[in-house]
Amino acid sequence: MSGSNKNQLILGFPEYREPAQQLASHVGIPYRDIELHRFPDGESKIRLPDSLPKKVIICRSLDNPNRKLVELALAAATARELGASELILVAPYLCYMRQDKAFHAGEAISQRIIGRQLAQWFDVVVTVDPHLHRVHKLSEVIPNRSTVTLTAARPIADFLSKTYDHPLLIGPDEESEQWVAAVAQMQGLEYVIGRKQRMDDYSVKITLPGSRCTARDLILLDDIASTGRTLESTAVALQAYKPASISAVVTHALFVNDALERLKNAGITQIWSTNSIPHSTNVIPLTELLGAALKYR
Amino acid sequence: MSGSNKNQLILGFPEYREPAQQLASHVGIPYRDIELHRFPDGESKIRLPDSLPKKVIICRSLDNPNRKLVELALAAATARELGASELILVAPYLCYMRQDKAFHAGEAISQRIIGRQLAQWFDVVVTVDPHLHRVHKLSEVIPNRSTVTLTAARPIADFLSKTYDHPLLIGPDEESEQWVAAVAQMQGLEYVIGRKQRMDDYSVKITLPGSRCTARDLILLDDIASTGRTLESTAVALQAYKPASISAVVTHALFVNDALERLKNAGITQIWSTNSIPHSTNVIPLTELLGAALKYR
Repeated sequence: MSGSNKNQLILGFPEYREPAQQLASHVGIPYRDIELHRFPDGESKIRLPDSLPKKVIICRSLDNPNRKLVELALAAATARELGASELILVAPYLCYMRQDKAFHAGEAISQRIIGRQLAQWFDVVVTVDPHLHRVHKLSEVIPNRSTVTLTAARPIADFLSKTYDHPLLIGPDEESEQWVAAVAQMQGLEYVIGRKQRMDDYSVKITLPGSRCTARDLILLDDIASTGRTLESTAVALQAYKPASISAVVTHALFVNDALERLKNAGITQIWSTNSIPHSTNVIPLTELLGAALKYR
Repeated sequence: MSGSNKNQLILGFPEYREPAQQLASHVGIPYRDIELHRFPDGESKIRLPDSLPKKVIICRSLDNPNRKLVELALAAATARELGASELILVAPYLCYMRQDKAFHAGEAISQRIIGRQLAQWFDVVVTVDPHLHRVHKLSEVIPNRSTVTLTAARPIADFLSKTYDHPLLIGPDEESEQWVAAVAQMQGLEYVIGRKQRMDDYSVKITLPGSRCTARDLILLDDIASTGRTLESTAVALQAYKPASISAVVTHALFVNDALERLKNAGITQIWSTNSIPHSTNVIPLTELLGAALKYR
Protein backbone atom coordinates (compact mmCIF):
# COMPACT_ATOMS: atom_id res chain seq x y z
CA MET A 1 0.00 0.00 0.00
CA SER A 2 1.32 3.43 -0.85
CA GLY A 3 2.35 5.65 2.06
CA SER A 4 2.99 4.73 5.65
CA ASN A 5 0.42 2.55 7.37
CA LYS A 6 0.14 5.24 10.03
CA ASN A 7 -1.39 7.53 7.42
CA GLN A 8 -4.18 5.06 6.84
CA LEU A 9 -7.08 3.93 8.97
CA ILE A 10 -9.40 0.93 8.86
CA LEU A 11 -12.95 1.59 10.06
CA GLY A 12 -15.37 -1.23 10.83
CA PHE A 13 -19.12 -1.22 11.36
CA PRO A 14 -20.13 -2.93 14.61
CA GLU A 15 -21.43 -6.19 13.09
CA TYR A 16 -18.18 -6.60 11.09
CA ARG A 17 -15.81 -5.52 13.86
CA GLU A 18 -14.00 -8.83 14.37
CA PRO A 19 -12.98 -9.51 10.74
CA ALA A 20 -12.10 -5.82 10.28
CA GLN A 21 -9.88 -5.84 13.38
CA GLN A 22 -8.16 -9.04 12.20
CA LEU A 23 -7.55 -7.45 8.81
CA ALA A 24 -6.16 -4.27 10.41
CA SER A 25 -3.85 -6.27 12.64
CA HIS A 26 -2.69 -8.39 9.68
CA VAL A 27 -1.78 -5.41 7.48
CA GLY A 28 -0.52 -3.23 10.34
CA ILE A 29 -2.99 -0.39 9.84
CA PRO A 30 -4.70 1.20 12.88
CA TYR A 31 -8.33 0.18 13.47
CA ARG A 32 -11.27 2.23 14.80
CA ASP A 33 -14.97 1.45 15.23
CA ILE A 34 -17.69 3.29 13.37
CA GLU A 35 -20.18 4.15 16.11
CA LEU A 36 -23.73 3.31 15.13
CA HIS A 37 -26.85 4.32 17.02
CA ARG A 38 -30.37 3.50 15.91
CA PHE A 39 -33.07 5.96 16.90
CA PRO A 40 -36.47 4.59 17.93
CA ASP A 41 -38.01 5.90 14.67
CA GLY A 42 -35.72 3.76 12.52
CA GLU A 43 -33.17 6.44 11.60
CA SER A 44 -29.47 5.69 12.08
CA LYS A 45 -26.80 7.89 13.60
CA ILE A 46 -23.21 7.40 12.47
CA ARG A 47 -20.12 8.71 14.22
CA LEU A 48 -16.56 8.44 12.91
CA PRO A 49 -13.30 9.33 14.66
CA ASP A 50 -13.14 13.12 14.57
CA SER A 51 -9.94 13.31 12.59
CA LEU A 52 -9.11 11.00 9.70
CA PRO A 53 -6.02 10.36 7.58
CA LYS A 54 -6.21 10.86 3.82
CA LYS A 55 -6.64 7.14 3.16
CA VAL A 56 -9.57 5.45 4.89
CA ILE A 57 -10.73 1.85 4.47
CA ILE A 58 -14.34 1.15 5.49
CA CYS A 59 -15.24 -2.49 6.16
CA ARG A 60 -18.79 -3.90 6.05
CA SER A 61 -20.40 -6.78 4.20
CA LEU A 62 -23.70 -5.86 2.56
CA ASP A 63 -26.00 -8.72 3.50
CA ASN A 64 -29.50 -7.46 4.43
CA PRO A 65 -28.42 -4.45 2.49
CA ASN A 66 -30.99 -1.66 2.59
CA ARG A 67 -30.30 -0.30 6.05
CA LYS A 68 -26.58 -0.94 5.64
CA LEU A 69 -26.42 0.97 2.34
CA VAL A 70 -27.92 4.12 3.87
CA GLU A 71 -25.52 3.90 6.82
CA LEU A 72 -22.66 3.38 4.36
CA ALA A 73 -23.68 6.54 2.48
CA LEU A 74 -23.69 8.47 5.77
CA ALA A 75 -20.27 7.09 6.73
CA ALA A 76 -18.69 7.74 3.33
CA ALA A 77 -19.93 11.32 3.05
CA THR A 78 -18.84 12.03 6.62
CA ALA A 79 -15.39 10.53 6.00
CA ARG A 80 -14.98 12.91 3.05
CA GLU A 81 -15.99 15.87 5.19
CA LEU A 82 -13.48 14.81 7.84
CA GLY A 83 -10.66 14.86 5.32
CA ALA A 84 -10.45 11.41 3.69
CA SER A 85 -9.42 11.85 0.07
CA GLU A 86 -9.05 8.15 -0.82
CA LEU A 87 -11.95 6.07 0.40
CA ILE A 88 -11.83 2.28 0.02
CA LEU A 89 -14.77 -0.04 0.64
CA VAL A 90 -13.95 -3.58 1.73
CA ALA A 91 -17.25 -5.43 1.32
CA PRO A 92 -16.52 -9.15 1.03
CA TYR A 93 -20.23 -9.64 0.29
CA LEU A 94 -21.68 -7.18 -2.21
CA CYS A 95 -25.45 -6.79 -2.45
CA TYR A 96 -27.85 -6.48 -5.39
CA MET A 97 -25.57 -8.39 -7.77
CA ARG A 98 -28.34 -10.71 -8.99
CA GLN A 99 -30.83 -8.20 -10.47
CA ASP A 100 -28.55 -7.54 -13.45
CA LYS A 101 -31.27 -7.06 -16.08
CA ALA A 102 -34.97 -6.20 -16.32
CA PHE A 103 -36.46 -9.70 -16.36
CA HIS A 104 -39.79 -7.98 -17.06
CA ALA A 105 -40.24 -4.54 -18.67
CA GLY A 106 -40.18 -1.78 -16.06
CA GLU A 107 -38.06 -3.64 -13.51
CA ALA A 108 -35.24 -1.80 -11.80
CA ILE A 109 -31.80 -3.07 -12.84
CA SER A 110 -30.72 -2.86 -9.22
CA GLN A 111 -27.18 -4.11 -9.79
CA ARG A 112 -26.39 -1.13 -12.01
CA ILE A 113 -28.16 1.45 -9.82
CA ILE A 114 -26.55 0.29 -6.56
CA GLY A 115 -23.19 -0.08 -8.34
CA ARG A 116 -23.36 3.55 -9.44
CA GLN A 117 -24.14 4.63 -5.89
CA LEU A 118 -21.09 2.76 -4.58
CA ALA A 119 -19.02 4.43 -7.31
CA GLN A 120 -20.21 7.79 -6.04
CA TRP A 121 -19.28 7.10 -2.46
CA PHE A 122 -15.97 5.21 -2.86
CA ASP A 123 -12.76 5.39 -4.91
CA VAL A 124 -12.04 1.68 -4.63
CA VAL A 125 -14.33 -1.31 -3.96
CA VAL A 126 -12.81 -4.62 -2.81
CA THR A 127 -15.05 -7.69 -2.77
CA VAL A 128 -14.96 -11.49 -2.81
CA ASP A 129 -16.76 -13.85 -5.21
CA PRO A 130 -19.43 -11.39 -6.37
CA HIS A 131 -22.39 -13.23 -7.85
CA LEU A 132 -21.95 -11.89 -11.38
CA HIS A 133 -23.91 -13.59 -14.11
CA ARG A 134 -24.72 -11.71 -17.31
CA VAL A 135 -22.41 -8.80 -16.45
CA HIS A 136 -18.99 -10.37 -16.15
CA LYS A 137 -16.82 -7.66 -14.66
CA LEU A 138 -17.33 -5.68 -11.48
CA SER A 139 -15.80 -2.67 -13.24
CA GLU A 140 -18.92 -2.58 -15.44
CA VAL A 141 -21.12 -2.54 -12.34
CA ILE A 142 -19.11 0.12 -10.46
CA PRO A 143 -18.06 2.42 -13.29
CA ASN A 144 -14.97 4.65 -13.36
CA ARG A 145 -13.62 3.35 -10.06
CA SER A 146 -10.98 0.82 -9.14
CA THR A 147 -12.53 -2.53 -8.33
CA VAL A 148 -10.73 -5.49 -6.80
CA THR A 149 -12.53 -8.82 -7.28
CA LEU A 150 -11.07 -11.56 -5.12
CA THR A 151 -12.01 -15.21 -5.00
CA ALA A 152 -12.14 -17.35 -1.89
CA ALA A 153 -11.09 -20.41 -3.96
CA ARG A 154 -7.61 -20.58 -2.35
CA PRO A 155 -8.66 -20.21 1.33
CA ILE A 156 -11.48 -22.70 0.70
CA ALA A 157 -9.14 -25.18 -1.04
CA ASP A 158 -6.65 -24.87 1.85
CA PHE A 159 -9.43 -25.53 4.33
CA LEU A 160 -10.73 -28.57 2.39
CA SER A 161 -7.33 -30.24 2.65
CA LYS A 162 -7.95 -30.47 6.40
CA THR A 163 -11.31 -32.24 6.07
CA TYR A 164 -11.70 -35.55 4.17
CA ASP A 165 -9.23 -37.70 2.30
CA HIS A 166 -10.05 -37.22 -1.41
CA PRO A 167 -13.57 -35.85 -1.12
CA LEU A 168 -15.65 -35.43 -4.28
CA LEU A 169 -16.55 -31.77 -4.84
CA ILE A 170 -20.07 -30.97 -6.05
CA GLY A 171 -21.00 -27.77 -7.87
CA PRO A 172 -24.79 -27.49 -7.84
CA ASP A 173 -25.11 -25.65 -11.15
CA GLU A 174 -23.31 -24.54 -14.30
CA GLU A 175 -22.66 -21.10 -12.82
CA SER A 176 -20.48 -22.65 -10.13
CA GLU A 177 -18.43 -24.78 -12.54
CA GLN A 178 -15.44 -22.50 -13.16
CA TRP A 179 -15.06 -21.78 -9.47
CA VAL A 180 -15.50 -25.39 -8.30
CA ALA A 181 -13.02 -26.52 -10.96
CA ALA A 182 -10.46 -24.01 -9.64
CA VAL A 183 -10.84 -25.25 -6.05
CA ALA A 184 -10.61 -28.88 -7.21
CA GLN A 185 -7.48 -28.23 -9.24
CA MET A 186 -5.71 -26.54 -6.30
CA GLN A 187 -5.99 -29.75 -4.28
CA GLY A 188 -6.01 -32.29 -7.14
CA LEU A 189 -9.61 -33.30 -6.40
CA GLU A 190 -12.40 -34.59 -8.62
CA TYR A 191 -15.67 -32.70 -9.04
CA VAL A 192 -19.09 -33.02 -10.64
CA ILE A 193 -21.50 -30.25 -11.68
CA GLY A 194 -25.30 -30.37 -11.45
CA ARG A 195 -27.95 -28.59 -13.47
CA LYS A 196 -30.31 -26.20 -11.69
CA GLN A 197 -33.79 -24.97 -12.60
CA ARG A 198 -35.14 -22.16 -10.37
CA MET A 199 -38.92 -22.49 -9.87
CA ASP A 200 -39.44 -19.38 -7.62
CA ASP A 201 -37.76 -17.45 -4.74
CA TYR A 202 -37.89 -20.50 -2.53
CA SER A 203 -37.58 -23.58 -4.75
CA VAL A 204 -35.12 -25.04 -7.23
CA LYS A 205 -34.71 -28.40 -8.99
CA ILE A 206 -31.27 -30.02 -9.33
CA THR A 207 -30.21 -32.76 -11.76
CA LEU A 208 -26.88 -34.54 -11.08
CA PRO A 209 -24.67 -37.27 -12.55
CA GLY A 210 -25.04 -39.10 -9.25
CA SER A 211 -23.59 -42.56 -9.85
CA ARG A 212 -20.06 -41.28 -9.13
CA CYS A 213 -21.20 -40.20 -5.66
CA THR A 214 -21.87 -43.60 -4.12
CA ALA A 215 -19.79 -44.24 -0.97
CA ARG A 216 -17.87 -40.96 -1.43
CA ASP A 217 -17.42 -38.05 0.99
CA LEU A 218 -19.20 -35.29 -0.88
CA ILE A 219 -18.53 -31.58 -0.38
CA LEU A 220 -21.01 -29.17 -1.94
CA LEU A 221 -19.46 -25.85 -2.98
CA ASP A 222 -21.28 -22.65 -3.75
CA ASP A 223 -20.47 -18.95 -3.68
CA ILE A 224 -23.59 -18.04 -1.73
CA ALA A 225 -26.29 -19.74 0.34
CA SER A 226 -29.34 -17.54 0.80
CA THR A 227 -32.51 -19.57 1.34
CA GLY A 228 -30.25 -22.63 1.02
CA ARG A 229 -32.70 -24.24 -1.44
CA THR A 230 -29.95 -24.94 -3.98
CA LEU A 231 -27.80 -26.82 -1.46
CA GLU A 232 -30.86 -28.50 0.04
CA SER A 233 -32.18 -29.76 -3.31
CA THR A 234 -28.70 -30.93 -4.29
CA ALA A 235 -28.28 -32.85 -1.04
CA VAL A 236 -31.71 -34.45 -1.39
CA ALA A 237 -30.88 -35.52 -4.96
CA LEU A 238 -27.52 -36.92 -3.81
CA GLN A 239 -28.95 -39.03 -0.95
CA ALA A 240 -30.36 -41.46 -3.55
CA TYR A 241 -26.80 -42.44 -4.48
CA LYS A 242 -25.83 -43.40 -0.91
CA PRO A 243 -22.75 -41.23 -0.39
CA ALA A 244 -20.50 -41.79 2.67
CA SER A 245 -21.16 -38.21 3.86
CA ILE A 246 -22.37 -34.81 2.62
CA SER A 247 -20.85 -31.50 3.72
CA ALA A 248 -21.12 -27.98 2.29
CA VAL A 249 -18.84 -24.95 1.98
CA VAL A 250 -19.94 -21.48 0.89
CA THR A 251 -18.18 -18.15 0.60
CA HIS A 252 -21.18 -16.06 1.66
CA ALA A 253 -23.25 -17.44 4.55
CA LEU A 254 -26.56 -15.61 4.28
CA PHE A 255 -28.68 -18.59 5.42
CA VAL A 256 -31.97 -16.71 5.74
CA ASN A 257 -34.82 -17.89 7.97
CA ASP A 258 -34.62 -21.64 8.73
CA ALA A 259 -32.08 -22.42 5.97
CA LEU A 260 -29.53 -24.00 8.30
CA GLU A 261 -32.07 -26.32 9.90
CA ARG A 262 -33.38 -27.45 6.52
CA LEU A 263 -29.84 -28.19 5.31
CA LYS A 264 -29.22 -30.35 8.37
CA ASN A 265 -32.55 -32.10 7.73
CA ALA A 266 -31.49 -32.72 4.11
CA GLY A 267 -28.54 -34.72 5.46
CA ILE A 268 -25.74 -32.16 5.21
CA THR A 269 -23.82 -33.00 8.36
CA GLN A 270 -21.22 -30.22 8.26
CA ILE A 271 -21.65 -26.68 6.94
CA TRP A 272 -18.67 -24.37 6.65
CA SER A 273 -18.27 -20.81 5.41
CA THR A 274 -15.74 -18.00 5.09
CA ASN A 275 -16.17 -15.04 7.42
CA SER A 276 -17.36 -12.85 4.54
CA ILE A 277 -20.64 -12.55 6.47
CA PRO A 278 -20.32 -13.11 10.24
CA HIS A 279 -22.20 -16.38 10.94
CA SER A 280 -22.01 -19.42 13.23
CA THR A 281 -20.70 -21.54 10.31
CA ASN A 282 -17.60 -19.30 9.75
CA VAL A 283 -14.40 -21.36 9.81
CA ILE A 284 -12.41 -19.86 6.90
CA PRO A 285 -10.98 -16.39 7.55
CA LEU A 286 -10.52 -14.07 4.57
CA THR A 287 -7.90 -12.02 6.41
CA GLU A 288 -4.90 -12.96 4.24
CA LEU A 289 -6.86 -12.68 1.00
CA LEU A 290 -8.16 -9.19 1.83
CA GLY A 291 -4.84 -8.18 3.36
CA ALA A 292 -2.92 -9.06 0.19
CA ALA A 293 -5.33 -6.92 -1.85
CA LEU A 294 -4.79 -3.94 0.46
CA LYS A 295 -1.02 -4.38 0.48
CA TYR A 296 -0.89 -4.65 -3.29
CA ARG A 297 -2.65 -1.32 -3.76
CA MET B 1 -49.36 22.13 -13.71
CA SER B 2 -47.70 22.61 -17.05
CA GLY B 3 -48.87 20.36 -19.88
CA SER B 4 -51.88 18.07 -20.06
CA ASN B 5 -52.56 15.84 -17.08
CA LYS B 6 -52.48 12.88 -19.48
CA ASN B 7 -48.77 13.52 -19.98
CA GLN B 8 -48.15 13.05 -16.29
CA LEU B 9 -48.33 10.04 -14.02
CA ILE B 10 -48.54 9.62 -10.27
CA LEU B 11 -46.80 6.52 -8.90
CA GLY B 12 -47.37 5.29 -5.35
CA PHE B 13 -45.45 2.81 -3.25
CA PRO B 14 -47.73 0.09 -1.80
CA GLU B 15 -47.85 1.42 1.79
CA TYR B 16 -48.81 4.89 0.53
CA ARG B 17 -51.27 3.74 -2.16
CA GLU B 18 -54.46 5.19 -0.69
CA PRO B 19 -53.29 8.80 -0.17
CA ALA B 20 -51.51 8.71 -3.55
CA GLN B 21 -54.65 7.48 -5.32
CA GLN B 22 -56.74 10.19 -3.61
CA LEU B 23 -54.22 12.81 -4.69
CA ALA B 24 -54.24 11.51 -8.28
CA SER B 25 -58.02 11.53 -8.39
CA HIS B 26 -58.13 15.06 -6.92
CA VAL B 27 -55.72 16.54 -9.48
CA GLY B 28 -56.95 14.43 -12.41
CA ILE B 29 -53.63 12.72 -13.14
CA PRO B 30 -53.55 8.97 -13.87
CA TYR B 31 -52.30 6.74 -11.03
CA ARG B 32 -50.23 3.54 -11.11
CA ASP B 33 -48.71 1.34 -8.40
CA ILE B 34 -45.00 0.85 -7.98
CA GLU B 35 -44.65 -2.93 -7.63
CA LEU B 36 -42.45 -3.91 -4.72
CA HIS B 37 -41.15 -7.39 -3.98
CA ARG B 38 -38.87 -8.26 -1.08
CA PHE B 39 -36.50 -11.16 -1.60
CA PRO B 40 -35.85 -13.51 1.33
CA ASP B 41 -32.30 -12.10 1.70
CA GLY B 42 -33.60 -8.58 2.39
CA GLU B 43 -33.07 -7.12 -1.08
CA SER B 44 -35.95 -5.26 -2.75
CA LYS B 45 -37.21 -5.55 -6.31
CA ILE B 46 -38.94 -2.54 -7.84
CA ARG B 47 -41.09 -2.55 -10.98
CA LEU B 48 -42.54 0.52 -12.64
CA PRO B 49 -45.01 0.71 -15.53
CA ASP B 50 -42.94 -0.08 -18.63
CA SER B 51 -43.57 3.23 -20.34
CA LEU B 52 -43.65 6.55 -18.55
CA PRO B 53 -44.57 10.11 -19.53
CA LYS B 54 -41.97 12.86 -19.23
CA LYS B 55 -43.38 14.08 -15.91
CA VAL B 56 -43.61 11.53 -13.14
CA ILE B 57 -44.67 12.12 -9.53
CA ILE B 58 -43.52 9.49 -7.01
CA CYS B 59 -45.41 9.39 -3.68
CA ARG B 60 -44.02 7.87 -0.48
CA SER B 61 -43.57 9.16 3.05
CA LEU B 62 -40.16 8.39 4.51
CA ASP B 63 -40.93 7.11 7.99
CA ASN B 64 -38.72 4.11 8.90
CA PRO B 65 -36.55 5.49 6.16
CA ASN B 66 -33.54 3.28 5.46
CA ARG B 67 -35.23 0.58 3.43
CA LYS B 68 -37.53 3.12 1.82
CA LEU B 69 -34.65 5.34 0.72
CA VAL B 70 -32.91 2.50 -1.13
CA GLU B 71 -36.18 1.55 -2.83
CA LEU B 72 -36.71 5.21 -3.72
CA ALA B 73 -33.26 5.34 -5.32
CA LEU B 74 -34.12 2.23 -7.37
CA ALA B 75 -37.47 3.72 -8.43
CA ALA B 76 -36.04 7.13 -9.33
CA ALA B 77 -33.16 5.75 -11.41
CA THR B 78 -35.51 3.34 -13.17
CA ALA B 79 -38.01 6.12 -13.91
CA ARG B 80 -35.20 8.09 -15.58
CA GLU B 81 -34.22 5.08 -17.66
CA LEU B 82 -37.85 4.63 -18.72
CA GLY B 83 -38.00 8.20 -20.02
CA ALA B 84 -39.08 10.47 -17.15
CA SER B 85 -37.31 13.81 -17.52
CA GLU B 86 -39.05 15.65 -14.68
CA LEU B 87 -39.23 13.60 -11.50
CA ILE B 88 -41.17 14.92 -8.52
CA LEU B 89 -41.08 13.39 -5.06
CA VAL B 90 -44.16 13.89 -2.89
CA ALA B 91 -42.99 12.85 0.59
CA PRO B 92 -45.30 14.44 3.15
CA TYR B 93 -42.96 13.10 5.84
CA LEU B 94 -39.26 13.64 5.13
CA CYS B 95 -36.68 11.65 7.07
CA TYR B 96 -33.38 12.58 8.69
CA MET B 97 -34.38 16.21 9.24
CA ARG B 98 -33.30 16.24 12.90
CA GLN B 99 -29.59 15.40 12.60
CA ASP B 100 -28.81 18.86 11.21
CA LYS B 101 -25.39 19.32 12.84
CA ALA B 102 -22.58 17.25 14.38
CA PHE B 103 -23.63 17.34 18.04
CA HIS B 104 -20.30 15.61 18.74
CA ALA B 105 -17.19 15.77 16.54
CA GLY B 106 -17.23 13.04 13.90
CA GLU B 107 -21.00 12.65 13.72
CA ALA B 108 -22.66 12.40 10.33
CA ILE B 109 -24.78 15.44 9.48
CA SER B 110 -27.41 13.11 8.12
CA GLN B 111 -29.86 15.84 7.12
CA ARG B 112 -27.37 17.28 4.63
CA ILE B 113 -26.20 13.90 3.29
CA ILE B 114 -29.70 12.52 2.75
CA GLY B 115 -30.83 15.88 1.35
CA ARG B 116 -28.09 15.75 -1.28
CA GLN B 117 -29.12 12.22 -2.22
CA LEU B 118 -32.72 13.34 -2.74
CA ALA B 119 -31.40 16.23 -4.84
CA GLN B 120 -29.58 13.71 -7.01
CA TRP B 121 -32.64 11.57 -7.58
CA PHE B 122 -35.40 14.19 -7.96
CA ASP B 123 -35.98 17.53 -9.66
CA VAL B 124 -38.62 18.65 -7.18
CA VAL B 125 -39.34 17.62 -3.58
CA VAL B 126 -42.74 18.38 -2.03
CA THR B 127 -43.13 17.90 1.72
CA VAL B 128 -45.26 18.95 4.70
CA ASP B 129 -44.07 20.45 8.01
CA PRO B 130 -40.45 19.27 7.80
CA HIS B 131 -38.86 19.26 11.23
CA LEU B 132 -36.31 21.98 10.46
CA HIS B 133 -34.49 23.48 13.40
CA ARG B 134 -31.08 25.09 12.89
CA VAL B 135 -31.35 24.95 9.08
CA HIS B 136 -34.42 27.01 8.27
CA LYS B 137 -35.09 26.34 4.60
CA LEU B 138 -35.55 23.03 2.85
CA SER B 139 -33.74 24.52 -0.16
CA GLU B 140 -30.56 24.51 1.94
CA VAL B 141 -31.07 20.82 2.70
CA ILE B 142 -31.90 19.78 -0.87
CA PRO B 143 -29.57 22.01 -2.89
CA ASN B 144 -30.12 23.22 -6.46
CA ARG B 145 -33.57 21.67 -6.74
CA SER B 146 -37.07 23.03 -6.43
CA THR B 147 -38.48 22.39 -2.98
CA VAL B 148 -42.08 22.92 -1.92
CA THR B 149 -42.57 23.14 1.84
CA LEU B 150 -46.22 22.95 2.81
CA THR B 151 -47.75 23.26 6.25
CA ALA B 152 -50.69 21.28 7.55
CA ALA B 153 -51.78 24.27 9.68
CA ARG B 154 -54.85 24.96 7.52
CA PRO B 155 -56.20 21.37 7.27
CA ILE B 156 -55.54 20.93 11.01
CA ALA B 157 -57.27 24.23 11.87
CA ASP B 158 -60.26 23.25 9.72
CA PHE B 159 -60.45 19.90 11.50
CA LEU B 160 -60.23 21.50 14.97
CA SER B 161 -63.29 23.60 14.25
CA LYS B 162 -65.29 20.35 14.21
CA THR B 163 -64.10 19.18 17.65
CA TYR B 164 -64.56 21.32 20.80
CA ASP B 165 -66.07 24.73 21.36
CA HIS B 166 -63.15 27.08 22.03
CA PRO B 167 -60.49 24.56 22.98
CA LEU B 168 -57.18 25.82 24.36
CA LEU B 169 -54.30 24.82 22.08
CA ILE B 170 -51.07 23.63 23.70
CA GLY B 171 -47.69 23.77 21.96
CA PRO B 172 -45.30 21.55 23.95
CA ASP B 173 -42.15 23.54 23.19
CA GLU B 174 -40.76 26.75 21.74
CA GLU B 175 -40.12 25.06 18.40
CA SER B 176 -43.85 24.54 17.95
CA GLU B 177 -44.81 28.13 18.80
CA GLN B 178 -44.96 29.68 15.35
CA TRP B 179 -46.93 26.79 13.98
CA VAL B 180 -49.37 26.53 16.91
CA ALA B 181 -49.88 30.31 16.77
CA ALA B 182 -50.78 30.03 13.07
CA VAL B 183 -53.36 27.30 13.71
CA ALA B 184 -54.82 29.27 16.65
CA GLN B 185 -55.10 32.44 14.60
CA MET B 186 -56.95 30.67 11.76
CA GLN B 187 -59.75 29.74 14.16
CA GLY B 188 -59.48 32.64 16.64
CA LEU B 189 -58.34 30.30 19.45
CA GLU B 190 -56.07 30.85 22.46
CA TYR B 191 -52.86 28.89 22.95
CA VAL B 192 -50.07 28.34 25.46
CA ILE B 193 -46.52 27.12 24.82
CA GLY B 194 -44.47 24.86 27.11
CA ARG B 195 -40.75 24.55 27.57
CA LYS B 196 -39.08 21.22 26.77
CA GLN B 197 -35.82 19.69 27.98
CA ARG B 198 -34.79 16.45 26.20
CA MET B 199 -33.06 14.05 28.59
CA ASP B 200 -32.36 11.19 26.07
CA ASP B 201 -33.97 9.37 23.11
CA TYR B 202 -36.89 8.29 25.26
CA SER B 203 -37.46 11.02 27.86
CA VAL B 204 -38.24 14.72 27.98
CA LYS B 205 -39.29 17.19 30.69
CA ILE B 206 -42.01 19.78 30.01
CA THR B 207 -42.72 22.98 31.95
CA LEU B 208 -46.06 24.72 31.29
CA PRO B 209 -47.96 27.81 32.39
CA GLY B 210 -50.73 25.47 33.53
CA SER B 211 -53.13 27.64 35.51
CA ARG B 212 -54.93 28.68 32.31
CA CYS B 213 -55.70 25.02 31.59
CA THR B 214 -58.10 24.30 34.46
CA ALA B 215 -61.54 23.12 33.27
CA ARG B 216 -60.59 23.71 29.62
CA ASP B 217 -60.69 21.33 26.67
CA LEU B 218 -57.00 21.11 25.80
CA ILE B 219 -55.65 20.13 22.39
CA LEU B 220 -51.94 19.39 22.16
CA LEU B 221 -50.42 20.23 18.77
CA ASP B 222 -47.12 19.04 17.41
CA ASP B 223 -45.60 18.49 13.99
CA ILE B 224 -44.41 14.96 14.79
CA ALA B 225 -44.98 12.26 17.40
CA SER B 226 -42.23 9.63 17.36
CA THR B 227 -41.80 7.97 20.77
CA GLY B 228 -44.63 10.26 21.92
CA ARG B 229 -42.62 11.27 25.00
CA THR B 230 -43.13 14.97 24.36
CA LEU B 231 -46.91 14.64 24.20
CA GLU B 232 -46.92 12.18 27.10
CA SER B 233 -44.86 14.43 29.40
CA THR B 234 -46.99 17.43 28.43
CA ALA B 235 -50.22 15.56 29.20
CA VAL B 236 -48.86 14.36 32.55
CA ALA B 237 -47.83 17.92 33.47
CA LEU B 238 -51.27 19.22 32.43
CA GLN B 239 -53.26 16.71 34.50
CA ALA B 240 -52.23 18.60 37.67
CA TYR B 241 -54.32 21.55 36.49
CA LYS B 242 -57.55 19.53 36.14
CA PRO B 243 -58.47 20.25 32.52
CA ALA B 244 -61.92 19.21 31.18
CA SER B 245 -60.25 17.00 28.54
CA ILE B 246 -56.94 16.45 26.74
CA SER B 247 -56.64 15.58 23.03
CA ALA B 248 -53.72 15.67 20.62
CA VAL B 249 -53.20 16.42 16.92
CA VAL B 250 -50.01 15.80 14.97
CA THR B 251 -49.03 16.16 11.33
CA HIS B 252 -46.73 13.11 11.28
CA ALA B 253 -47.98 10.03 13.14
CA LEU B 254 -44.86 7.92 13.65
CA PHE B 255 -45.92 6.59 17.09
CA VAL B 256 -43.12 4.04 17.48
CA ASN B 257 -43.41 0.99 19.75
CA ASP B 258 -46.04 1.46 22.50
CA ALA B 259 -46.34 5.25 22.05
CA LEU B 260 -50.10 5.24 21.44
CA GLU B 261 -50.83 3.15 24.53
CA ARG B 262 -48.69 5.40 26.72
CA LEU B 263 -50.47 8.49 25.41
CA LYS B 264 -53.84 6.96 26.30
CA ASN B 265 -52.46 6.07 29.75
CA ALA B 266 -51.28 9.67 30.17
CA GLY B 267 -54.92 10.77 29.83
CA ILE B 268 -55.01 11.86 26.18
CA THR B 269 -58.47 10.65 25.24
CA GLN B 270 -58.40 11.46 21.52
CA ILE B 271 -55.41 11.37 19.17
CA TRP B 272 -55.73 12.67 15.63
CA SER B 273 -53.27 12.96 12.75
CA THR B 274 -53.03 13.90 9.09
CA ASN B 275 -52.52 11.05 6.62
CA SER B 276 -48.92 12.13 6.03
CA ILE B 277 -47.95 8.71 7.40
CA PRO B 278 -50.67 6.03 7.07
CA HIS B 279 -51.78 5.27 10.67
CA SER B 280 -54.91 4.34 12.61
CA THR B 281 -55.14 7.91 13.97
CA ASN B 282 -55.40 9.50 10.49
CA VAL B 283 -58.45 11.76 10.23
CA ILE B 284 -57.10 14.79 8.32
CA PRO B 285 -56.40 14.19 4.62
CA LEU B 286 -53.63 16.21 2.98
CA THR B 287 -55.13 15.69 -0.47
CA GLU B 288 -56.14 19.31 -1.14
CA LEU B 289 -52.93 20.72 0.28
CA LEU B 290 -50.73 18.47 -1.85
CA GLY B 291 -53.03 18.83 -4.84
CA ALA B 292 -52.76 22.62 -4.77
CA ALA B 293 -48.97 22.36 -4.74
CA LEU B 294 -49.00 20.08 -7.78
CA LYS B 295 -51.48 22.28 -9.66
CA TYR B 296 -49.48 25.41 -8.93
CA ARG B 297 -46.34 23.98 -10.46
